[in-house]
Amino acid sequence: MDSRLDGIDEVLLMGPGPSCVPDEVYRALSRKTLGHLDPYFIGIMDDVKRMLQRVMMTGNRLTIPVSGTGSAGMEACFVNLVEPGDRVLVLVNGVFGLRMQDVASRLGAEVDSLEFEWGTPVRVERVAEKLRAADYKIVAMVHAETSTGVRNPAAEVGRLLEGSRSLYLLDAVTSLGGIEVATDAWGVDALYSGSQKCLSTPPGLAPLSFSGRALETVMARKSKVPNWYLDVGMITKYWEGKARFYHHTAPVNMIYALHQALSLILEEGLEHVFARHLENHRRLVAGLEKLGVEMLVEPESRLPMLNSVRIPEGTDDKAVRGRLRADYKIEIGAGLGPLAGKIWRFGLMGHTARPENVDSLLSALKAILV
Amino acid sequence: MDSRLDGIDEVLLMGPGPSCVPDEVYRALSRKTLGHLDPYFIGIMDDVKRMLQRVMMTGNRLTIPVSGTGSAGMEACFVNLVEPGDRVLVLVNGVFGLRMQDVASRLGAEVDSLEFEWGTPVRVERVAEKLRAADYKIVAMVHAETSTGVRNPAAEVGRLLEGSRSLYLLDAVTSLGGIEVATDAWGVDALYSGSQKCLSTPPGLAPLSFSGRALETVMARKSKVPNWYLDVGMITKYWEGKARFYHHTAPVNMIYALHQALSLILEEGLEHVFARHLENHRRLVAGLEKLGVEMLVEPESRLPMLNSVRIPEGTDDKAVRGRLRADYKIEIGAGLGPLAGKIWRFGLMGHTARPENVDSLLSALKAILV
Repeated sequence: MDSRLDGIDEVLLMGPGPSCVPDEVYRALSRKTLGHLDPYFIGIMDDVKRMLQRVMMTGNRLTIPVSGTGSAGMEACFVNLVEPGDRVLVLVNGVFGLRMQDVASRLGAEVDSLEFEWGTPVRVERVAEKLRAADYKIVAMVHAETSTGVRNPAAEVGRLLEGSRSLYLLDAVTSLGGIEVATDAWGVDALYSGSQKCLSTPPGLAPLSFSGRALETVMARKSKVPNWYLDVGMITKYWEGKARFYHHTAPVNMIYALHQALSLILEEGLEHVFARHLENHRRLVAGLEKLGVEMLVEPESRLPMLNSVRIPEGTDDKAVRGRLRADYKIEIGAGLGPLAGKIWRFGLMGHTARPENVDSLLSALKAILV
Repeated sequence: MDSRLDGIDEVLLMGPGPSCVPDEVYRALSRKTLGHLDPYFIGIMDDVKRMLQRVMMTGNRLTIPVSGTGSAGMEACFVNLVEPGDRVLVLVNGVFGLRMQDVASRLGAEVDSLEFEWGTPVRVERVAEKLRAADYKIVAMVHAETSTGVRNPAAEVGRLLEGSRSLYLLDAVTSLGGIEVATDAWGVDALYSGSQKCLSTPPGLAPLSFSGRALETVMARKSKVPNWYLDVGMITKYWEGKARFYHHTAPVNMIYALHQALSLILEEGLEHVFARHLENHRRLVAGLEKLGVEMLVEPESRLPMLNSVRIPEGTDDKAVRGRLRADYKIEIGAGLGPLAGKIWRFGLMGHTARPENVDSLLSALKAILV
């Protein structure tokens, strides 16, 4: 029987994720499935934990991939830490900050937020002001706002929270593996990411890390975590210790793929990986300038792995994206929310961040935008 | 660098899942990742929906794979349908019935349950009695209780609920693709399964189907679904209609794998697939009888794909499972809860249900149990 799967093209993934996947990772993904309690598989799980700790720069014991995509990581952080009535401050400057508000509100949190113009970063002095005025159980921010391409001041917000009782929750979905994410040094208590961005694994896993303080907060809850599937107390019993208690069946093959992807990153070396992202970002920005295409974000707040540009006036957004996909097999990202129709988002994440890819995109844009 | 992944054996997966995966499904899994909003990928999603509808025997429009393992399917059903204070009746005769109780309680449901001895089926007359005594918003049951190997009377419970206002929630994790699951004919309102059982896809997806009545219940909620990630109202906007709204990034490669696995099942034909499960079950039972190994469950309630046997007296449970894995590369399942140390569970799920596998297990058991 002819299958639609036979028609899958190799597309150059230069949108906001998923990113290009190295061949070694595809091979890992299709290795023979083992049981989720198999002793050999548990060795693979232990490797993944150790490698995630290195990439996240943390000694947190609770460092695991959650069995879902990046948004499941967000959900897992909030659902474990929030109890009804808890005060949560969310710093919002894009879609993923808004999503945090929604997730926390659904769980009965009293959500307060501080908004910043989309395309600009969170301003630390305004956060400081807010923190002087009220106490929060959780302060939550997106490190790399995928909807705009803005890098938020994660280290600085961490410093503000030093010595406070607030837990620091950081979304590192797009940043992890592309720029420094110093979980422990920044005092982050709950961090999550996604496999399909700079880790260059297909979508399906959400690496997550909880500090000792965050774990104590979970253990001291008055009510059970209102989400059995994402209860980190139970998940930890599967990922830790000698007796591995069955919780849910882990996505075995996805974990193989993540294992391979983390190995590749650590072999290349985190510093080299970050430098590669930066170099390719610079190459892209220089090329875009030549084409007269303007960046949305000011240089000091730009993310190397997510480049938002203003759609040139008079240009048909959809038509350009359609031609890139159809004629050049390149995927780029559209604008979201208030930026829909106004920007494009060019991803240079993980395996996508290579000069030949930057050049392919630039020459395609040059041909289309004449 | 030497990778632990290089040491992955091909294990004959004869436990309670994951099951053996056909080579075609591994190949599908490792096809090039497309974007989750790519028009070609949306065609693949549409195929998956249609094929799931056929395998689930339903016309339900809301029929999709949830981005998580089987337990995420359970969570999705309850979290969308339950509001605090709702009355839920759970029929319990094993681990997965207990899990339903836990999941529903965490969401604030008033959970009532009816318990049956583990290893025996739900008795319809006791359910009828219970339903005469009280009204429930949801009546929930596990079709194939993976912890015991019991087939519960799904059609009969469905008939009991005909004309009532209760929603019928059925766990088809282990049954789907191995025995008939007639979602519409049985009046099931919310059904979920897992990719790694009789569908022979690696773990990571939970096929789910909601009836129109279930969807209306979600739409009529007084409160937002307290789980952003699993909110079917929002997920549906991604899986349906012309404009596909980005919700979360779908696990693209896992969906390829499910596409291939469903195609294989439908090519073989559901009736043939069910017959193959039954034949291999009979072959296994006959062989076990020759070895003097006793089945846990009475013939009329046995599941073909999950065969529980009493561990012969004086036999070392762990040692036998360890030898099977180490010397024969066969995984079988241990007992859970009150059945730990008392039973083994032999899975004949999906691609595992083949005579050569039955014979390998029987000859290994024969050698070990002398």
